[in-house]
Amino acid sequence: MRKKINLSLALMLLSAVITMAQELKSFTLDDLIPGGSNYYNCSIKNLYGVQWWGDRCIVPDAEEVKTVNPRNGKETLLFTLYDINEGLLSYTGAKLPRIYSLYDISFPEPDRPIVRFRSQDYMIYYNFEYRQVDHLVALGKGAANLDMAPGGRSAAYTVGDQLFVSPSAKASDIISLSPEFADPATAPADHDLVYGQAVHRNEFGIMKGTFWSPRGARLAFYRMDQSMVTDYPQVDVDTRIATLVPDKYPMAGMTSHKVTVGVYDLASGKTVYLDAGDPTDRYFTNISWSPDEQKVYMIELNRDQNYAQLVRYDAATGKREAVIYEEMHPKYVEPQFPLTFLPWDDTKFIYQSQRDGYNHLYLFDTSSPVAPKVEQSANGGTYKESFRVTQLTEGDWLVQSIVGFNEKKKEVYITSTEISPMQTNTYAVNVKTARRRPVGNSEGVHSVQLSSDGNYLIDNYSTPDVPRRIDLIATAGNKVTKCLFTADDPWKGFRVPDIETGTIKAADGETDLYYRIIKPVDFDPAKKYPAIIYVYGGPHAQMLQNNFRYAARGWDIYMAQQGYVMLTIDNRGSSNRGLAFENCTFRQLGTEEMKDQMKGVELLKSLPYVDASRLGVHGWSFGGFMTTNLMLTHPDVFKAAVAGGPVIDWKYYEVMYGERYMDTPEANPEGYKNADLKQRAGRLKGRLEIIIGGNDPTCVPQHSLSFLRACIDAGTHPDFFVYPGQGHNMVGRDRVHLHEHITRYFEDHLK
Amino acid sequence: MRKKINLSLALMLLSAVITMAQELKSFTLDDLIPGGSNYYNCSIKNLYGVQWWGDRCIVPDAEEVKTVNPRNGKETLLFTLYDINEGLLSYTGAKLPRIYSLYDISFPEPDRPIVRFRSQDYMIYYNFEYRQVDHLVALGKGAANLDMAPGGRSAAYTVGDQLFVSPSAKASDIISLSPEFADPATAPADHDLVYGQAVHRNEFGIMKGTFWSPRGARLAFYRMDQSMVTDYPQVDVDTRIATLVPDKYPMAGMTSHKVTVGVYDLASGKTVYLDAGDPTDRYFTNISWSPDEQKVYMIELNRDQNYAQLVRYDAATGKREAVIYEEMHPKYVEPQFPLTFLPWDDTKFIYQSQRDGYNHLYLFDTSSPVAPKVEQSANGGTYKESFRVTQLTEGDWLVQSIVGFNEKKKEVYITSTEISPMQTNTYAVNVKTARRRPVGNSEGVHSVQLSSDGNYLIDNYSTPDVPRRIDLIATAGNKVTKCLFTADDPWKGFRVPDIETGTIKAADGETDLYYRIIKPVDFDPAKKYPAIIYVYGGPHAQMLQNNFRYAARGWDIYMAQQGYVMLTIDNRGSSNRGLAFENCTFRQLGTEEMKDQMKGVELLKSLPYVDASRLGVHGWSFGGFMTTNLMLTHPDVFKAAVAGGPVIDWKYYEVMYGERYMDTPEANPEGYKNADLKQRAGRLKGRLEIIIGGNDPTCVPQHSLSFLRACIDAGTHPDFFVYPGQGHNMVGRDRVHLHEHITRYFEDHLK
Repeated sequence: MRKKINLSLALMLLSAVITMAQELKSFTLDDLIPGGSNYYNCSIKNLYGVQWWGDRCIVPDAEEVKTVNPRNGKETLLFTLYDINEGLLSYTGAKLPRIYSLYDISFPEPDRPIVRFRSQDYMIYYNFEYRQVDHLVALGKGAANLDMAPGGRSAAYTVGDQLFVSPSAKASDIISLSPEFADPATAPADHDLVYGQAVHRNEFGIMKGTFWSPRGARLAFYRMDQSMVTDYPQVDVDTRIATLVPDKYPMAGMTSHKVTVGVYDLASGKTVYLDAGDPTDRYFTNISWSPDEQKVYMIELNRDQNYAQLVRYDAATGKREAVIYEEMHPKYVEPQFPLTFLPWDDTKFIYQSQRDGYNHLYLFDTSSPVAPKVEQSANGGTYKESFRVTQLTEGDWLVQSIVGFNEKKKEVYITSTEISPMQTNTYAVNVKTARRRPVGNSEGVHSVQLSSDGNYLIDNYSTPDVPRRIDLIATAGNKVTKCLFTADDPWKGFRVPDIETGTIKAADGETDLYYRIIKPVDFDPAKKYPAIIYVYGGPHAQMLQNNFRYAARGWDIYMAQQGYVMLTIDNRGSSNRGLAFENCTFRQLGTEEMKDQMKGVELLKSLPYVDASRLGVHGWSFGGFMTTNLMLTHPDVFKAAVAGGPVIDWKYYEVMYGERYMDTPEANPEGYKNADLKQRAGRLKGRLEIIIGGNDPTCVPQHSLSFLRACIDAGTHPDFFVYPGQGHNMVGRDRVHLHEHITRYFEDHLK
Repeated sequence: MRKKINLSLALMLLSAVITMAQELKSFTLDDLIPGGSNYYNCSIKNLYGVQWWGDRCIVPDAEEVKTVNPRNGKETLLFTLYDINEGLLSYTGAKLPRIYSLYDISFPEPDRPIVRFRSQDYMIYYNFEYRQVDHLVALGKGAANLDMAPGGRSAAYTVGDQLFVSPSAKASDIISLSPEFADPATAPADHDLVYGQAVHRNEFGIMKGTFWSPRGARLAFYRMDQSMVTDYPQVDVDTRIATLVPDKYPMAGMTSHKVTVGVYDLASGKTVYLDAGDPTDRYFTNISWSPDEQKVYMIELNRDQNYAQLVRYDAATGKREAVIYEEMHPKYVEPQFPLTFLPWDDTKFIYQSQRDGYNHLYLFDTSSPVAPKVEQSANGGTYKESFRVTQLTEGDWLVQSIVGFNEKKKEVYITSTEISPMQTNTYAVNVKTARRRPVGNSEGVHSVQLSSDGNYLIDNYSTPDVPRRIDLIATAGNKVTKCLFTADDPWKGFRVPDIETGTIKAADGETDLYYRIIKPVDFDPAKKYPAIIYVYGGPHAQMLQNNFRYAARGWDIYMAQQGYVMLTIDNRGSSNRGLAFENCTFRQLGTEEMKDQMKGVELLKSLPYVDASRLGVHGWSFGGFMTTNLMLTHPDVFKAAVAGGPVIDWKYYEVMYGERYMDTPEANPEGYKNADLKQRAGRLKGRLEIIIGGNDPTCVPQHSLSFLRACIDAGTHPDFFVYPGQGHNMVGRDRVHLHEHITRYFEDHLK
């Protein structure tokens, strides 16, 4: 009898285990891929619109807005959607439509109860204490790239390629800053001239094309003449008969566009252009204003991108006054940040530079001129200073952003990788002593907002075990005063695979590289699994960090569920590791990066549960270049691969990014040849599918089509797919289809 | 002992059988596919340049030219390459280059010893009796579409879109007939105007754009204005940066080009245009001359293609004189042949018409006018005659070509399908009695040339068992006087699979359809093989005939070797079966054709050696449309398919062919919708690969790209491949690559 009972018990237990296992759900791509029908539910939740109104923390939702006292966490209702719509309705100065949500609002004036939001025709400044419209700024039809002047009395915006300034509530007051477009009847639609938009293909930290002076008296703006730039012939097949959509695309080594910088003065109504000289083959970037609105600063870079000058201009006349700082480097200089003036001292600004090998803060004292002379940089280049300069931060880690200031304590707040290259944490740096102290906890990846006075921080972060948490922190005591939000694990109830991270040595034998391995669900160490490397590998990106589940990608999770081991390694050349780690790839993109990825292959081969005869690789963009390159360079290692939107030949890539890392095809013929994957088309042995967006404006279709041509000529057989109408990355529902397609390819050829 | 010997003997025999089998070679795609490295050796040989010089048969080779007396087969050396080059060298009138082969020569004058050949700058008329140049006609640089006037004193040719007439040996005498291009500096390169080339996209039997009058006094020519036609934006990715190659492409229902016909008079140097009225939405085709060079005849068709008029014009004035014949049909009228005047009676011409349901010859007697009235046609349409008309041939078979005349016997020679729709045989038809008699043998597919006097025939033919034979035949006695050539079986020594043909009933239950089945090599009736249908299915084509091995395609043979059963059926809608067989598809392309192909599926399923769970289908162009359509309409029948250059939506196809069968999208919205494969994109279940030439000017890439878009939107997963730079059909080495690719797809997904 006893035996029987034990057996029954065992069966019951077994049954319970099975039931538990059964209760866990399997993922579908709709759960894991952006655009999927259940993607939102499987994503980590956030609190949208949390922000500072001066020193008060604002927490909006669709219907009402609360303030949270950062000192004690006390919540107060500020206003409701109903309040606002009442006020809009009763306004008589213009017909204003009601608004439907309070998520997209801002609080532009720290000391006045003003909330700002947009209607189609106006930017509305609403006084929520008086419950009435404070003032309006008129917007033209189709206004984009909207940039409101500090003080809130003027707007700059673009319509098509034109730039406008609106100084009032009256549409009739709107001024065009693009005189060539004055007559709409003859306005060209060829994108030969573009005003007020980001230029230089968003390189050098450029994200916009208008720059208000600190109190809104003047507007600096970009004007880009690309009439001399070749059009790439994109084709729209979604019209009755396919139509040409020409797209200005300056390819490496070819004629590039010419950028100039205008300064519009609202008082005089006049525009001057900065007297920067011939703009041919030059980059004008990181436009900054002096606090008194009298000077414009700009970093000017030669086409070779190895010589940067920080230049000061007179804002009223456009006169070039002085080169106040210079950096040179035998590989490249890449300025990414504008000047940040100290709020308490107009004579000092912070400049960010990689001149010691890592991005750090340098305090420039314009009241202390020095005789400029060429100095050796620790990064292998040189620099030349015109003022006394103090380095505020240093170490083999890098500053990622300046968050704000505490004027009283003379602190600047930054985020940095000081704790780990896998992390982003906040520090307060005393500008006088250069001493710094951590703010917030020492784990994970933080995204922060500092209050006006610098006494409190909204700290939005994630760690490998914390999906998301938003804390209010008192910067003085570094204490959490209130937890505003905690996100649940969105994958609760799913069969989530094990995710491991670690480091291996790079191919140089010295450098640590971080990797992430995702093991198949229901992992059985006795089994042999196929393995896929997901790779990006290019500059300015990092595939794994210490945020929730080490930033494991949805598709990787899905493939682990399908029985694949997934590996990702951030090779040399990727971001957050400093200049030397990045620029070892100079003039030979792909070479060192692949060596490091092959260390990952060694790692996989060392794992008893990996079937080394079934290795795959997948990547997109630079990762598509890496994927294709790995397949052709190591044809006996990989069995199947999917390369998306790949660079195939850097001479088809654009000037700004391409020449930074590769120089021009004329200057570096060997480097271009070695990185030209068409040259190795005949080496393809395994299965390789190339996938592109039919209208990719970044890695233009010529890359992949010329590669197919090279393979056909060489007698090899890649596969190919195209998403008509899509760009460089698939968006919407197509992204799910894409990952079904990629999955199917590996299931067909790797499983 | 005895037993032992027997065993040894058996083993020896077995070994011999195995050795024999081993000695047979297997095909590679290089053997079987045009462009393959061994394709020439595996092709049926021919005798190039065999032709008549009057009544003497000419057999050229690279070095020498012989005549063969058709009476007794006696060969005589006529001249050698050396002779000609001696003559060219000694010519003082111009510097003439030597020639390197005698394959590309002709004998334009039946009664004079003149051989014609071309150098870069001249058409050379050489007297091989006097061994000297007879005369030259100057040609402009890049001359194309060369058309020599009867008599040999003038040339018409095009350069780019321009048309020229050269009346002498002097380049300075060359006349431009395209005045808009007079100034090369301002000559447009946009193809808005095209002179002297085939128009209407080569439909209606149009193969050229210049038409000399019978003695060369006048030249009729096409002028096409396509400035109003939309450009399809083709893209060339083989340039430094991809470039636009706009290609005029009038899509069904959209604005079409306008064609006019000029007549240039050499004596006066003047051009008149035929006064045909507004050319909008009209087709001008089958231009013919009266024997006296005074009249031009033209068949004029409305855009709906259901009303054809034969119109006579005065060649000197361009005046429209009379409509002399009309045909109407509720579906379409498709004139394909110009008039053929009787050599012995200028008042009579032969007109070819399908008015009784099959293409037949009608003798028009212009000396016997009748009062025109509308008559019912046996084909369901109507016609109207202005002269007495005698039907020369009739029956449920069709005339394929007029070969020539025997003036003495008053015979016209034709080829026809009288013996079988699978054959092409020669007949002599007595024009007075309409009696006809066969000439040459009654088997196979014949391609023939008649001597000037009509007494002898060069009969080049093939039957299922004869790769090729070229006979000289006396037309009077129908006897072979000499066999000029017999081709060996080029596949001797290869493992050639069994090829069977037969008929099945079409889906209408009545019509016989011809099919061809190729069985796997080393066929084992006990096995179950996968099967692939190769399909074309569109009008004006026939996939099987009674020529060598029933026209089995190289790739089909290869696949049979790989272990597939290959089936091809000429469904209703295909050629050589008469009008009703063809036009049952009207306004519903694909519908009846697919029903017939499904009868082929029934046939396959009835075969014990076919595995019905592994059926595939492959086709190109119309066959790509059929393939895709079959996959989507019968998703549970086919497991894998490859569709090449498919029509996906007939509204993306061109006006001339498309509207003949489908009318316009406006007139036939239901028909277009039913044939629009994008509508059924969501039904895809099996594996379907679409393959296109990247610059296909016939089925433009919009077809396939819009289909991919539809599938992506519907969540289905076709595969896709593109041959950059290729057109509607892959040519050269790419064609081998293509068939490797197609083979791999079936091996991946059907085997």
